Amino acid sequence: MAKKGNIIVGQSGGPTSVINSSLAGVYKTAKERGFHKVYGMLHGIQGFLDEQYVDLSTQIHSDMDIELLKRTPSAFLGSCRYKLPEIHENPEIYEKIFSILDKLNIEVFIYIGGNDSMDTIKKLSDYAIVRGHRQKFLGVPKTIDNDLALTDHTPGFGSAAKYIATSTKELIRDALGLTYNKDMVTVVEVMGRNAGWLTGATALAKTEECDGPDLIYLPEVAFDVEKFLKKIQDLLKKKKSVVVTVSEGIKLEDGRYVCELSGGPDYVDAFGHKQLQGTAAYLAGLIQNEIGCKTRSIEFSTLQRSASHMASRVDINEAFMVGGAAVKAADEGDTGKMVVIDRVSDDPYMSAAGIYDVHKIANNEKLVPRSWLNKEGNYVTNEFLNYIEPLIQGDYQPFMVNGLPQHLVLKK
Amino acid sequence: MAKKGNIIVGQSGGPTSVINSSLAGVYKTAKERGFHKVYGMLHGIQGFLDEQYVDLSTQIHSDMDIELLKRTPSAFLGSCRYKLPEIHENPEIYEKIFSILDKLNIEVFIYIGGNDSMDTIKKLSDYAIVRGHRQKFLGVPKTIDNDLALTDHTPGFGSAAKYIATSTKELIRDALGLTYNKDMVTVVEVMGRNAGWLTGATALAKTEECDGPDLIYLPEVAFDVEKFLKKIQDLLKKKKSVVVTVSEGIKLEDGRYVCELSGGPDYVDAFGHKQLQGTAAYLAGLIQNEIGCKTRSIEFSTLQRSASHMASRVDINEAFMVGGAAVKAADEGDTGKMVVIDRVSDDPYMSAAGIYDVHKIANNEKLVPRSWLNKEGNYVTNEFLNYIEPLIQGDYQPFMVNGLPQHLVLKK
Repeated sequence: MAKKGNIIVGQSGGPTSVINSSLAGVYKTAKERGFHKVYGMLHGIQGFLDEQYVDLSTQIHSDMDIELLKRTPSAFLGSCRYKLPEIHENPEIYEKIFSILDKLNIEVFIYIGGNDSMDTIKKLSDYAIVRGHRQKFLGVPKTIDNDLALTDHTPGFGSAAKYIATSTKELIRDALGLTYNKDMVTVVEVMGRNAGWLTGATALAKTEECDGPDLIYLPEVAFDVEKFLKKIQDLLKKKKSVVVTVSEGIKLEDGRYVCELSGGPDYVDAFGHKQLQGTAAYLAGLIQNEIGCKTRSIEFSTLQRSASHMASRVDINEAFMVGGAAVKAADEGDTGKMVVIDRVSDDPYMSAAGIYDVHKIANNEKLVPRSWLNKEGNYVTNEFLNYIEPLIQGDYQPFMVNGLPQHLVLKK
Repeated sequence: MAKKGNIIVGQSGGPTSVINSSLAGVYKTAKERGFHKVYGMLHGIQGFLDEQYVDLSTQIHSDMDIELLKRTPSAFLGSCRYKLPEIHENPEIYEKIFSILDKLNIEVFIYIGGNDSMDTIKKLSDYAIVRGHRQKFLGVPKTIDNDLALTDHTPGFGSAAKYIATSTKELIRDALGLTYNKDMVTVVEVMGRNAGWLTGATALAKTEECDGPDLIYLPEVAFDVEKFLKKIQDLLKKKKSVVVTVSEGIKLEDGRYVCELSGGPDYVDAFGHKQLQGTAAYLAGLIQNEIGCKTRSIEFSTLQRSASHMASRVDINEAFMVGGAAVKAADEGDTGKMVVIDRVSDDPYMSAAGIYDVHKIANNEKLVPRSWLNKEGNYVTNEFLNYIEPLIQGDYQPFMVNGLPQHLVLKK
């Protein structure tokens, strides 16, 4: 067997709780498959262009480090948001990339990220084929938003869903404890500009001992303010604590975002900037104004994508699997491909890594099917729940040091 | 031994992750000590006045239920915010309370709560002594804010601190992964109107592999906007990601809250209400305006007090201990007392339940000592860390059912 060269891996786009588990999968499989060195580009292709990279063997010293990496949120190598220009627009940048790759004796280039990252894989693999470069280019998906096509679901989604469902359950409990003879409406805002997968995940809080949210609104269905207020009023006749979850990106029939409704001419902040309130804050204010009851609004914010202390075991394992599968595919001669997760079986849940031509990946976002929402468009159906439930199962106990989860971090 | 009568327990004020562990401690010890029935008042003294109560033996059927209760956030029995009038103002209400107590054959009344709850204990025990009623009244402290005097710390504080420190660590990691050649300032807002204990807890995120927050501002020290901006600018010369944690209640030298600064005449929301921005949102806007870098603001909001999935084992155990100690004290004849936590030893950390005359509890809030903040007033000292570190140690694994933490809830 000919001696193998080196491999390089990068991370790109918004981080997730498990993007480092994919990195761990790449590293471990690359080592097992006999690659010489495994480099990590710092801050993705952007840092790579500045020749910022690290030999991962200086960072990962043991199986314990691999386990720690699986439990570390955010991009261990640093991330970037950088879209490569078209080849004909800027061939110099491609020449530069390949000269660095050749200098480092790279045979395989793996990029963990979202749609933009798959675009990078496509362009680089096209360029390599046209110019006769030997490198293989493979993509590994990640996004909490679960809006990538072709893959059954994306690594990162299950953990975000688990955190969101857990926190929703805890908030519902908190609200119930507080409402005796006064009504209260809690509005919870969840990430998701166009796709409502994460907001739908709040339905998981409906369990034998919890009602779950009362209403769930996704961007996939036009939001009707009047109907919403009517619904809240009806619910308040039956219960004292009403909990509503909404995607940040819910829109009216006419296409305006609900959060834009706060943008009257008078709504400027202390610095004179026109200010958009959050969607939940706006709706809570609206309810207070129109119905008069106590309200509170909560945004899960960045915690949704970084709360690795509540990551799903299934998700961490699958993220690891797709990282390793990318290395295997490249080692077996594939290029210009993205690894995906195929659902092999529902009961028991089983998944496997599949592979897709990166040219076939459309840039459109995968939305929640309309049929997975109820008729009124204010809750998800059992199909949705059957789809998502397996993805939040199990956990990897954080390694607790001095009472806090320990992370693996880059040593420079 | 004479046959014992019954005992009643209630919960009051803002809930915590461990207020139910105190309830579990009351229940278990009452049963062990031979009390006949253990009643729980629903929504504290307010529900009690409406004769809303439950026999806890219909709710707790096993040691497993006790363990589940310890892991359930918010007030299992429901909470209230209700201050008893002075005895001379409304003697009828006291007569009503004691007639219900007599009807239920109550010998011991235990109230888990904050300052207002201790006021309730004081008034009821005074009334009982003056009127010759036999009931004993005992208070069990709880608050995430840790602002009660006489007790070394309050049950609920350690778990909130653990959640806040964990989330801060995860947010710092998230920010680091995102900042390559652009600066970003993250401003995190933590609960605490007058006392900065919880915001100080973010310093725990400073560990061998994490810088922790760069600046920490508590309400105990006047906030200087100019100095703050200068400090941020200096930090941005050295690092790309700066993370600042602030108490919601930080104030200027002249006593105005920082969040009030957003309240210019133009700052009204979509409904014409004058609107106060959050402290973090205001400061993030200010930094963006004055320094021009990317900012983000995050509020931990209600999650701080309800995230029992990240509760501290020390805290849960101590909450259980003080619940049990209240029953013991009453059983041994005490009344008009509050149980406190005494720190017996620092290394190894050991604590024990103590007891205080509830008349001696001043209503003033316990603040972070000035000497536990650095000279500039923008970080906590090692004394602060030595105090808080033992309180976040260990965990109780949540009982996970179908991927989510299970709770014990009231069956009606």
